[in-house]
Amino acid sequence: MMDYQLTLPTLLRRAESLFAHKEIVTRLPDRSIHRCTYGELAVRVKKLAAALHRLGVRQGDRVATLSWNHSQHLEAYFAVPCMGAVLHPLNIRFSADDLSYIVNHAEDKVLIVDQVLLPLFEQFKDRVNPSRVIVIPQAGTDAGFGAGSGGRAWTDAGFGAGSGFGESRVAAGYLDYEDVVASGDASLFEPFEADEYAAAFLCYTSGTTGRPKGVLYSHRSILLHSMTSLFSCCGIGVTETDVVLPIVPMFHAGAWGFPYNCTLAGATQVFPGPYLDAESLLELFEGERVTVTAAVPTVLRNILVALDADPQKYGLCLRVFLVGGSGVSRHLVASFADRYGIRVVSSWGMTEMSPTGSTAVVSSRLQKASKEEQLDYAIKPGLPAPFVEIRARDEHGFIPWDGVRTGELEVRGPWVCSSYYRGAESDGRFTSDGWLRTGDIVSITEDGWIDIKDRSKDVIKSGGEWISSIALENALMGHPSVHEAAVIAIPDPKWVERPFAYVVPKAGMAVSPAELQAFLRGQFAKFWMPDGYAIVDAIPKTSVGKFLKSALRAQYINEHPPRD
Amino acid sequence: MMDYQLTLPTLLRRAESLFAHKEIVTRLPDRSIHRCTYGELAVRVKKLAAALHRLGVRQGDRVATLSWNHSQHLEAYFAVPCMGAVLHPLNIRFSADDLSYIVNHAEDKVLIVDQVLLPLFEQFKDRVNPSRVIVIPQAGTDAGFGAGSGGRAWTDAGFGAGSGFGESRVAAGYLDYEDVVASGDASLFEPFEADEYAAAFLCYTSGTTGRPKGVLYSHRSILLHSMTSLFSCCGIGVTETDVVLPIVPMFHAGAWGFPYNCTLAGATQVFPGPYLDAESLLELFEGERVTVTAAVPTVLRNILVALDADPQKYGLCLRVFLVGGSGVSRHLVASFADRYGIRVVSSWGMTEMSPTGSTAVVSSRLQKASKEEQLDYAIKPGLPAPFVEIRARDEHGFIPWDGVRTGELEVRGPWVCSSYYRGAESDGRFTSDGWLRTGDIVSITEDGWIDIKDRSKDVIKSGGEWISSIALENALMGHPSVHEAAVIAIPDPKWVERPFAYVVPKAGMAVSPAELQAFLRGQFAKFWMPDGYAIVDAIPKTSVGKFLKSALRAQYINEHPPRD
Repeated sequence: MMDYQLTLPTLLRRAESLFAHKEIVTRLPDRSIHRCTYGELAVRVKKLAAALHRLGVRQGDRVATLSWNHSQHLEAYFAVPCMGAVLHPLNIRFSADDLSYIVNHAEDKVLIVDQVLLPLFEQFKDRVNPSRVIVIPQAGTDAGFGAGSGGRAWTDAGFGAGSGFGESRVAAGYLDYEDVVASGDASLFEPFEADEYAAAFLCYTSGTTGRPKGVLYSHRSILLHSMTSLFSCCGIGVTETDVVLPIVPMFHAGAWGFPYNCTLAGATQVFPGPYLDAESLLELFEGERVTVTAAVPTVLRNILVALDADPQKYGLCLRVFLVGGSGVSRHLVASFADRYGIRVVSSWGMTEMSPTGSTAVVSSRLQKASKEEQLDYAIKPGLPAPFVEIRARDEHGFIPWDGVRTGELEVRGPWVCSSYYRGAESDGRFTSDGWLRTGDIVSITEDGWIDIKDRSKDVIKSGGEWISSIALENALMGHPSVHEAAVIAIPDPKWVERPFAYVVPKAGMAVSPAELQAFLRGQFAKFWMPDGYAIVDAIPKTSVGKFLKSALRAQYINEHPPRD
Repeated sequence: MMDYQLTLPTLLRRAESLFAHKEIVTRLPDRSIHRCTYGELAVRVKKLAAALHRLGVRQGDRVATLSWNHSQHLEAYFAVPCMGAVLHPLNIRFSADDLSYIVNHAEDKVLIVDQVLLPLFEQFKDRVNPSRVIVIPQAGTDAGFGAGSGGRAWTDAGFGAGSGFGESRVAAGYLDYEDVVASGDASLFEPFEADEYAAAFLCYTSGTTGRPKGVLYSHRSILLHSMTSLFSCCGIGVTETDVVLPIVPMFHAGAWGFPYNCTLAGATQVFPGPYLDAESLLELFEGERVTVTAAVPTVLRNILVALDADPQKYGLCLRVFLVGGSGVSRHLVASFADRYGIRVVSSWGMTEMSPTGSTAVVSSRLQKASKEEQLDYAIKPGLPAPFVEIRARDEHGFIPWDGVRTGELEVRGPWVCSSYYRGAESDGRFTSDGWLRTGDIVSITEDGWIDIKDRSKDVIKSGGEWISSIALENALMGHPSVHEAAVIAIPDPKWVERPFAYVVPKAGMAVSPAELQAFLRGQFAKFWMPDGYAIVDAIPKTSVGKFLKSALRAQYINEHPPRD
């Protein structure tokens, strides 16, 4: 067989040769719509790569982005790995402190920053030292960032002559992204195809302890992972006829792989830019005839609220709404299916696994099951993707796959990481035989369906018995007046830990602890019932929209100081 | 990222752990139906592998099969590569002379033979020298082959004691497959997972000249190729809910990958055994609720004839009928779609490419096209599969992708071979930069659709202009009275070559050359019209069901000796 390395230039070439006329659509910061084609994108990618090379970027160097989802970010997604360098999207929801740590830890050589995100960059620019900062000019945005930008200058003195620098759209001290692209000579682009195991992409994930840790994806892992969204057997099955809008940010786990997956399939890509509110998204869904989208459950919930407010308002073509990041409720899945004919596909993954691990597919057994049982399964993380292997263990060893016993899930596969970047502390994340410990407490059914009972750090152990915070949350979020609910473990002198619920009512609604307690009664064993409820305006969330339970635990302790 | 080798044991483990209860269904030679599960299959695979090891099979050794499509063949498909050896299915349609050549060339160490195929094996058994011959006992078949089996004995003297050999179901001199499996100790099975580039599978393809040539598939190439049938974007999108019946034989290009693809997806597999007639297949389609099937156009045509004979007879669940091996006609595609709601997906490939190269998908552009244009595209070989790259050239260099200019198609990709087994003459099949020359004369549209105009060896060059034999054949097969048509080049003193058509009328129908000529007139330029027609009972075919045009050319010359 041919020695055909699975590298990103093969994807770029495929899109350029087969899908040159297909579109990439972006909502710009001024809310206008920008359109380009894969053909145009491929030329700009080559020019950007050639220009970055001229700026000193070499094989293995890191190039960071601080960007929303848009076509220029997609250009960087290809240009940087296709020239053999490593793309490093920065999570804009990290603190300035973490961002400066990450940029320095990764030794990012060049930074590409959205003009609208310069205020964030300015918060840590004095603590980092890239050789160049390239700003993507964005019409209709306030460019008044120059005054405080200090003495640093990341422009290339010998670079801009005649390339429009005299009237640059970006402030002094920065390179203009469009000038950089314009300056590149596409004919000088040299695709990196030597080694599929070479590094291509770097993501930092906020660990539970300590500093964020880097996960390095290879060309091989990205290309193999790209298949998951194209597989029908993963419940998504993206094709060239699809119009895909990844709501999940390109700065978070590579937007779950969609920018690469869609390019492989030739699907139309639609990027929402900075507008992630439900109305803006629904407008794009309708206007661009979006068929596939992906987001965390919080966004899904917001979209449902907006849809329900005026069910006839939008004409949608959505066939699949992929959710991940945290569990989804029956209510959400059933509402989308029954009221809008949209299939919500639950999935599970981690930045450490590129990120797709499993999806809740409709199996042949489920096809014949009752609607209720189908819903039971639709909210689970699902069946491992092809090439992903799973097992789980408790303190006694590997658990049987009986759907009852629980243990920590371990995974392996060609797109699962085996260590953190630059030797960061692994926190015991890897087993001695090379599997990744996920930190998720799960049961596994006889036929391999994963059901996440809790995060290992969120488990409530009461009187020696486990209580699933996730099960209680999903039940509470099924109450008609509840918008969100998070359940945490609180200290208890007798039972060691007891559950306590933080609940956000729906807009304009009220709900009482007594009402909630009555609602849960009968659904759970008596000892699972929360010891108390706090009705709150909002639940703190992580940078990727998950409930930040550590903050709730701290808040509880703060409000209920232990007596001694 | 983890060093996770793409090897076949990972597929076996997946099926065993996730799809243990899913079925593999076989029609046995006595027409009864045999059922087993992936769980049972996995145990038998391990036992077979352990037993083969005990019989002396080691890593890299070749184990040949002479078998129809059935569950034991599937066991060998996994047991042999999963122990690090190489499975080598023998094409039962090759001549005994070629088969003995192939077995000796491959140095097959063990042969596994269907009891019903022993008469074929007996034709060349004295010319080959495997260390063991294992016979799959098949109920209801005539086992009376022993008399002429001569003095050879491939049994293991120390093997059968107590394993039922005293009353073996197979003749003396052979091992009983079921005894072999029963003797294996599954706990001794050692999965081969060290190197995805290792050899796993060997296919011989009948070249246009000389002896058949071997193509060696690796674990990697098989696993990457397995994705093609699972991709929605290839128009097939097999899932766990599918019931797949590959009519294409497992001894031909690995049944186009379906045995492996289906195992990866967890689909139910249905094997027709030796019964490939339309009625037997239709019975299985209906009885087992088959959703996906695959065959050459000849079989598709036969099935259409049987369906049309009594359109209400069968209740079918077929959603996709994949065809390949040679071109399919508009008439066939339209008939299946309009009358039976079955989508015929045209595909193209070669044994040298594992074999899938392209499939005729419905692109976003075609979705909006007229039904006629959709049909124009549905009969083309289609768009290259993900990870397959194409180009074509004529005597002047690479041709533009304009849908008009023609040249020989060249391909590369991770499942395309780079040489023939054991240094067999490559006939100039590989370019200096490592692409495979396919021998197909094609045009390529602007958006990458391949259209095969002819085999390079079948091209008719008349007065310096090319005439497509395939286009004429497809037009003739659109005539209501024509069953099959093959067009060849005949020598012509003035034009060098001219087209001549061999035509088989439909059963009970008659057709005249004048009628055919009138039918073609207006569809083609005048110089394309065949110089003559021969109405015949059958067209000779190759071992894989393609028109054997070399035989027709010889027949023509024989019947029309050149005057001098």
